[in-house]
Formats: sequence, C-alpha cells, structure tokens
Amino acid sequence: MTDNKVQIFDTTLRDGEQVPGCKLDTQQKLIIAERLDLLGVDVIEAGFPISSPGDFKSVEEISRLVKNATVCGLTRAVKKDIEVAAEALKHAVKPRIHTGIGTSDSHIKYKFKSNREDIIKRAYDAVAYAKTFVEDVEFYAEDAGRTDNEYLARVCEAAVKAGATVLNIPDTTGYCLPEEYGAKMKYLMENVKGIDKAILSCHCHNDLGLATANSIAGVVNGARQIECTINGIGERAGNTALEEVVMILRQHPDLGLDTNINSRLLWDTSKMVSDKMGMPVQPNKAVVGSNAFAHSSGIHQDGVIKNRETYEIMDPEEVGVTESAIILTARSGRAALAYRSKKVGYELTKLQLDDVYEVFLKFADKQKEIHDEDIHEIMKEAKIQTQVEA
Amino acid sequence: MTDNKVQIFDTTLRDGEQVPGCKLDTQQKLIIAERLDLLGVDVIEAGFPISSPGDFKSVEEISRLVKNATVCGLTRAVKKDIEVAAEALKHAVKPRIHTGIGTSDSHIKYKFKSNREDIIKRAYDAVAYAKTFVEDVEFYAEDAGRTDNEYLARVCEAAVKAGATVLNIPDTTGYCLPEEYGAKMKYLMENVKGIDKAILSCHCHNDLGLATANSIAGVVNGARQIECTINGIGERAGNTALEEVVMILRQHPDLGLDTNINSRLLWDTSKMVSDKMGMPVQPNKAVVGSNAFAHSSGIHQDGVIKNRETYEIMDPEEVGVTESAIILTARSGRAALAYRSKKVGYELTKLQLDDVYEVFLKFADKQKEIHDEDIHEIMKEAKIQTQVEA
Repeated sequence: MTDNKVQIFDTTLRDGEQVPGCKLDTQQKLIIAERLDLLGVDVIEAGFPISSPGDFKSVEEISRLVKNATVCGLTRAVKKDIEVAAEALKHAVKPRIHTGIGTSDSHIKYKFKSNREDIIKRAYDAVAYAKTFVEDVEFYAEDAGRTDNEYLARVCEAAVKAGATVLNIPDTTGYCLPEEYGAKMKYLMENVKGIDKAILSCHCHNDLGLATANSIAGVVNGARQIECTINGIGERAGNTALEEVVMILRQHPDLGLDTNINSRLLWDTSKMVSDKMGMPVQPNKAVVGSNAFAHSSGIHQDGVIKNRETYEIMDPEEVGVTESAIILTARSGRAALAYRSKKVGYELTKLQLDDVYEVFLKFADKQKEIHDEDIHEIMKEAKIQTQVEA
Repeated sequence: MTDNKVQIFDTTLRDGEQVPGCKLDTQQKLIIAERLDLLGVDVIEAGFPISSPGDFKSVEEISRLVKNATVCGLTRAVKKDIEVAAEALKHAVKPRIHTGIGTSDSHIKYKFKSNREDIIKRAYDAVAYAKTFVEDVEFYAEDAGRTDNEYLARVCEAAVKAGATVLNIPDTTGYCLPEEYGAKMKYLMENVKGIDKAILSCHCHNDLGLATANSIAGVVNGARQIECTINGIGERAGNTALEEVVMILRQHPDLGLDTNINSRLLWDTSKMVSDKMGMPVQPNKAVVGSNAFAHSSGIHQDGVIKNRETYEIMDPEEVGVTESAIILTARSGRAALAYRSKKVGYELTKLQLDDVYEVFLKFADKQKEIHDEDIHEIMKEAKIQTQVEA
C-alpha cells in the first residue's frame, strides 16, 4: 500500500470490554458504536458473536445501526465460530470477519497441542471459509510478537492466498520493543508473497507501557491499520490508546501518515466510554486525562503566559477541550476546580485552592453540577478576588 | 560510559508533585523519600529549594534522612537559586545540584528574551558556580527535545567544561518520537567533546504517550540515567513511569542494561504514592494498575490455565503482587473484587459478579477493609459456591 491513510480499527467493544468487572449491555454498546462511527473510525470490532447470546445480539444490532464504518466480528479458526459471526454481521453495510489462530511456539504447543504445518493449514482453511460469507476477511496471528518472523511470514502468505484483506500482527503479551515490532512489520512487507493484496495491522498490548510506541513503529514500517481502544482500556494493562496514536500522527505531519478521525470528538468520547464502562481515566493520562492540558508550576505558568507554545504542543481545542469540557461535580478533584476557576478569572495558589476546594465541596454536595456562575459564588464565600483577566 | 547500569533518578517529589491540586507536606515527603531509598533509586530529586520555604525545608529534611541515594535540588541558572539549594542540601551524604536553562529557540526568544551565545555563557556560569558548592552537578537543557542537535551539543560541551557530571536532555513538551529522541542521544554521544566525563540523562514527558518508549530509546543510544516518577505522575500527562522503564530493562536482558531497583517493592510503592498524593492509578496502568495481572476473557483464562507463560511475561510476584496486594475497600471496583474472590476460590461470571458486588458494597460500607474471611461471608450471602480450587 502506498496510501498514507492509517485505518483506525476500534476494538473498545471487543478487546476493550474484556476487562474484569466491566459489562456493557447492548443498549450501551449501541450508543458507543454510534459515537465511534461519528468519531470517524474505519472499523468497529463489535464483539465475539459465538461467545454468548448477548455478544451475538450486540454485533447484530450494531451491524444494523452503523452506516459508515466497517463492522467486524471476532472468531477463532473454527467453522462454527465463522458461521455464527457471518450470521450476526448479515445486516452490516460493510461486514468483516476477523479470524485467526495462535502462531507462537508457546501457543502451538500448549494451547493447540499442534505443530507448525497444521497451524498454517488451519489458518488457510479459516480464511477461505470466512471468504465464502464476506469479501473482507482479517486474519490474526495470535502472539505474533513472540513468533519468529520467517514462520510468521509463511502463515501470512497462506492467509493472503486464502483471500485475507488484512493481516493482524498482535503483540499479545505486550512484550515487544518498538524497534523489534517495527522490524517485524518491515520483514513481513518485504517477505510475504502477495502482501500488496492485503494491509498489515498493528494490535499492541500495553503490559510494559509500549503499546502506543509499538503501533507507531508498525505504521512507520508499512502497516496501514492500528487496532486500538478509547482510553487504552482492555485486559491487563490494556490496548493501544486510540487518542494517542491519532494525535501522534496529527502532530507529526513529517511522518506522512494520517487517520480519518475527527479529533475534536476525542475528549467527549473518552468521557462517555469511561462513564459507561465504569473505568476511570487517570488525571495524568495522555491526551484525555483531566490534567493533560493543565499547568500549575510557577515556571511553567510563567512560560505559558509569555507564549502558549513554550509548553504546549497540542491546542486543547483540537481534542475537544473547551471551557465546559471539564465538568465539576462533587467527585471532581482540585485540578479540575483550578482549571475551571482559571477560565473564569481566578488564578489560585495552592493554599487558596485548599480553601476554595472546601467551599466547593459544600456547594457540590448540594447540586449535581457546578457552573461558571456558581464558581463566582464559591470564590465570594472563600474570600478570593479575581486575579486574572477572564 | 561503558557501564551497563542505568541510574534511576526519581523526581516524584519535584516534577511529580507539580500537579494541580496535589500537595504533600514535609512529613509525607519524608515517608516517600525513605521508601524511594529502600526501593533502590540512585537519585532522589527532593524539591526546588528556592521556590518556597516549605520546599526548602523538605529538601533539607530529606537530605538528613536519606542514607543511600544521592539527594538532588533543582535550581534555575541563577546564583541565588544555587546558593539556596546548596544550603538545603548541606546535610546530604551525597548532594547534587540540578541547574540549567532553556535551550530551544522558543525558550530563548520568549522566555529569556536572549540569544544563543548568551545562553551558553549562562549555562557555563551556573554549572561552574554550583561546582563551588558540590562535586556532583547535573545540567538540564530545558526543551532539548525541540533544540537543534548541533547547538545542543555546544551547550552540553560548555556544561561539561564547567564540570557537569550529568547532562539532562528533557523532552519538555513530550513531543519527540522514540527514534528522534534516540538519535539525539546518539548525536550527543558522538559530538560532545568530553562526553566521557559525564553521563547523559533522559527526562521525558508523556503528552503523546511516548515517555517510556523515548526513555528506553535514550538509554539504548548511550544515556545512562532516566528521570522518572512513581505511577508516571507529573504535570499535564506526567513523566516517564519508573515502574515501566525498570521492568522493560528487566524483561529484556538482551538490551544489556539494568537498574538497581528492587522490583518487588514497586506495587506497594505505587499504592503509597497514589494514596499520599491523592492521585488515582487507572486499572489499566502498565505494571501497577489493579488489572495489570488480571485475566477475564474465556480464551485468555483457558490459555493461562494451560500454561501461565501463554499470556503473561512478567511474574506478578516480581513486582510485588501477592494475594493481599489488592486491598478491598468500599472504593474498590469489580475488578479488584473478582481478583481477590478468585484467589480464595470463587471464579465468578459477570452476572454473578454484579450480585456479589452489591453485597460486597454493603459489607465494605460497614468496615474499612474486606479480608479473605469476609469474602466467604459475602459469597454466602450472595448464594455463590466455591467453584475452583483455592
């Protein structure tokens, strides 16, 4: 592919939802799917249809609802899985079946009690069978991160021969270093016969904090799809964070790559997914954390006042942070309060913030949300005067 | 330096504490400093002594307390700052002054209203002056990430000539890509005259989610110190997470680099810092998130039961996760409850977990902490029977 568009494959509703204690009902999944479609993701992985009747129903309903994005269902390399996925996807405008098998020695030996040649055959057969139902078939080589490149290329070749349109190369355990993951993509670009008929996809886990860097290394080396989730949620330490890879490509035009995402919807989408899943986002989360654009230290404030660009590279508005984007409730921390207070004219010292925060909590306990006009009341009660121009 | 030890410079108490709304008193800082010393960090940046009497006092008290680590105080390239820092550090067994100045065109022009030659002179003078007080002087080139390499090398050369033992190359805005940051370190290793007299230090911010990857790229290309914080806390999207870089080097012995950190204390230290600072850690945080070692999906559970190595690369015990490491309180989520329940013999479905969680909250509201024996009571009330061997 010479195209410079990187496809965003969102798996918030599949890999993201595999979080202990997190459960979305079909209605909530539909709301999130609709928002993802609006955000501009290219593919929505809606679920794993054979895993439960609920998952089947969600994939089916999302298939009916989504108008722009491709809707994808996960399967193992098993006939029944593929049949059920095809059934769940039948109303999708653009259906995709995502099938595959573990390819690392550890998976082949312990999980499948099989051998390398048999795995290649199973991979080929699964893709070929999926192709009898849909045109768009993505193949995953589970634990590709720990699969040696030469064998991996052979598996990929078989998948392409069977008709795969996308080859997903997951770093299932989050073990790869960026250079290594990038080199793997480069090797596949150069050694898989027929690679021009498919695109390579990055699917990285964050166990060592490297999912984002690995995904970027992947696309720099030829991959053209990134599998990711809102807020980087997912099992264990989660998946690649959609908002991070999107903003890296946008902030680094020199890479010559971009996505179709409307970044101004990122902040709200993050909040929606966090709320619906009951999965908090830490204040220091890149791009969407409540502190991501907050400055507090004297040195930094001074720098920012002199020239915003001194300490900020992203315009907060580009990711949808506006004055009202940080909602103040009884659950808000001092950071959010300081941010909103500053927006309406009060630049607080740490000591002042302590006083104001106590008054704030009294107000917040009484009403659901604190608005700008309430902040003025709070300041009056805390005896703070406007210090900066609003 | 041919040494394969990477120095860990912890700045939780300085850069980490520059978080809106986060405020530690001296007593809390002493407790954290003592724990950092036990954890095995090489340097503790204890504060910015001239910034406030409280910060001065904290640096002074930490200097008296810490027995193993170097204690470091931050200054601007200003005489008075350096004098005050030297005074605060005078009881330290191993004191270090950390001084420096902005070197990017944006900082030179807007922040200092100065020029390149003047900045080099100020850098030299600051280091030389600090050397009159202490032997160990670290120089920082603020916004080095956006400073062109040739000029940056000249600034570094001046600092080394003045006696700097460490050259800190901060990516202040979190803008660099790993390849770019690594190339910067390589360039400095090859082009700074006298570089053998100092070590290069990585100081990365996480605005685009790349702080960890950038720091690793830095040490792979010759740097021998990483500046980081527990849980990656810090202004905006935070700093490099100590626990991530430590575990990457430990899990990748092929890199030939390691630290002095006792990784078994990471989990507890994370929790302590999160509690004292009131800064929550998201469940999907790498290495120290409450879900970092939790498995829930059927496929994964099956794989893990067959062979733990199928899906885990780190032994949870290596970072100090034991059965009792996840404390259950009224603030705990379903993930923590599922994890602890499983440890004592209850493998819950999502639906069961919902029921159990409700009962759990009733118990948790009554008592501060839920212990293993309480879990059995909760299960009895929720009518759940043991399903797996404990």
